[in-house]
Amino acid sequence: MRKQRREPLSGDSAELALIRRIRRRAYRSTHGLSLGIGDDCALLRLKKGEEVAVTTDLSIEGRHFRLNLHPPEAIGHRALARGLSDIAAMGARPVAAFLSLGIPNELTQPKGKAAAWIDRFYDGIFELANRHQTPLAGGDLAQSPIAIADIVLVGAVPRKSALLRSGARPGDRLYVTGSLGGAALGLRMLGSVRANSPDLAPHLWPEPRIAQGLWLQRRRVASAAIDISDGLSTDLLHLCEESGVSAEINVPALPISPGANLDDALHGGEDYELLFTAHHGARIPKSIGGVPVTCIGKVVRHRRTSPRIAMIDAAGNATALEPGGWEHFSASKPY
Amino acid sequence: MRKQRREPLSGDSAELALIRRIRRRAYRSTHGLSLGIGDDCALLRLKKGEEVAVTTDLSIEGRHFRLNLHPPEAIGHRALARGLSDIAAMGARPVAAFLSLGIPNELTQPKGKAAAWIDRFYDGIFELANRHQTPLAGGDLAQSPIAIADIVLVGAVPRKSALLRSGARPGDRLYVTGSLGGAALGLRMLGSVRANSPDLAPHLWPEPRIAQGLWLQRRRVASAAIDISDGLSTDLLHLCEESGVSAEINVPALPISPGANLDDALHGGEDYELLFTAHHGARIPKSIGGVPVTCIGKVVRHRRTSPRIAMIDAAGNATALEPGGWEHFSASKPY
Repeated sequence: MRKQRREPLSGDSAELALIRRIRRRAYRSTHGLSLGIGDDCALLRLKKGEEVAVTTDLSIEGRHFRLNLHPPEAIGHRALARGLSDIAAMGARPVAAFLSLGIPNELTQPKGKAAAWIDRFYDGIFELANRHQTPLAGGDLAQSPIAIADIVLVGAVPRKSALLRSGARPGDRLYVTGSLGGAALGLRMLGSVRANSPDLAPHLWPEPRIAQGLWLQRRRVASAAIDISDGLSTDLLHLCEESGVSAEINVPALPISPGANLDDALHGGEDYELLFTAHHGARIPKSIGGVPVTCIGKVVRHRRTSPRIAMIDAAGNATALEPGGWEHFSASKPY
Repeated sequence: MRKQRREPLSGDSAELALIRRIRRRAYRSTHGLSLGIGDDCALLRLKKGEEVAVTTDLSIEGRHFRLNLHPPEAIGHRALARGLSDIAAMGARPVAAFLSLGIPNELTQPKGKAAAWIDRFYDGIFELANRHQTPLAGGDLAQSPIAIADIVLVGAVPRKSALLRSGARPGDRLYVTGSLGGAALGLRMLGSVRANSPDLAPHLWPEPRIAQGLWLQRRRVASAAIDISDGLSTDLLHLCEESGVSAEINVPALPISPGANLDDALHGGEDYELLFTAHHGARIPKSIGGVPVTCIGKVVRHRRTSPRIAMIDAAGNATALEPGGWEHFSASKPY
């Protein structure tokens, strides 16, 4: 690891001190980096036979978070969690994160004796990054009239081993990690309960399923996978379309978060759980790395006359499930 | 290359048509990608013995560009050129680009019979990306009150072969590609001459020096390199500080762009030329890939009592050069 020798170019302002602080903290975890912050690019070294997995996730003030409702640490945590969750969905290991941050000048200033917004934002980033041994290897910083954060995650996965959306086959079983709807419930309660209420935790502090994705990739048991960022109804549709199949959800089996309702679980989004498929004969444990795994239905052949996703109730009746989680051009989404 | 099979989820709006257009165009150049747009991550495959080079560059409306002054194509071109220039400065080959774009809804709408801003913006991206065989492999898209574009470039370079800022040694000669100050001149004239005036070209259409960076890396002749994004005075200071050396600029030798002045050349920034050092005995050609290369001075031992950068005039008199290109927290800059 190269040491940073660059000195401030002018003044001794709070912002330059901030940049020095970011760099120092970024260096605490440098696993996998051959060159970190301080040159034109960062340099990453992969293991033999690995491919590079890359994802970017844009978070915009007023759209993905609100400065008056979300603790700064949670904004940082959620931004990074979105990227890590994409890495988890490929069964990849995170190698490095990059952050492009645009913020108004006042967010870099301490509030009386309290830390500046940006320091608390980075607290949230580094807490989660360190827990997943993911160094912050670079990024960009600019003044902006609104706060925006673009998180880039670079991961690594053995060649031809990545979990894709496109491998589900009729007869496969459908699984989710953890529980669904908690993030939607938390979003609904945001502002009406205290920030440390456990009801808000699934919304404020989602946990990317890195260990679970790696487990599935290494055991080669999943035929397809996606993370539930837009809601089960929408992400299952993506998986079905990419795989050219349809799916049936066994509604009574859905692991709905305590306090959440069926709509939250189906359409709420931002749970960042993994949705995956596996051959019906595959042995899938009841939990992976301490996180419950639930069979919620099965993959069936696609017929033009049938809905892509059918919900089967306790009496065995089927109804079509329309995607409801994905608000068209109103939320951030990958191309 | 996997085909995109995902269908629009709702409506037949202009935005969904837009996303389909982006995807189709992104697929025209897929050299080096094992999986492009359409899954949780893109997958990139490197050649044996290569490291991954990663850089991100944030462009923000009102700070890096103005909607009323910059043609949309030039905004796209400049955003991508910034990232490619960082790849060039490492001597890497570009492998893939990613774009996180936040834009107001109206920029996605056609203007009467004219194409929408966003289509023209992507024209600028794809024209430059295709010229450098760099596929757009993913990104994120969100509605935003102001336009912001974060460009991520992933490159590849043989292990231990990247051009770093830190390798300059006393006695080395100092070189720049192309000419300096043209971008500052163009910025000054923006709005007062027609958009197609050749005086604006260095500002609107900077050319990243990918071929020149690769040449230097493959010939192993450069001891250090950096791209001139913040201005010669600032970027040379970065290189000197990272290398622990000082430098002397031979002012009469500076290749100043026609119409530009010495201040433009020293402090203007955004020229995106390469600044590099090489052993005094190294044979550096007068041009690389059709771009002139000029020796502008030399590297000297750093002494605490002497300025980092001295300018030597035609009479041999030395004056200290203070960095002037880097506006503290007022422009985007890497950490």
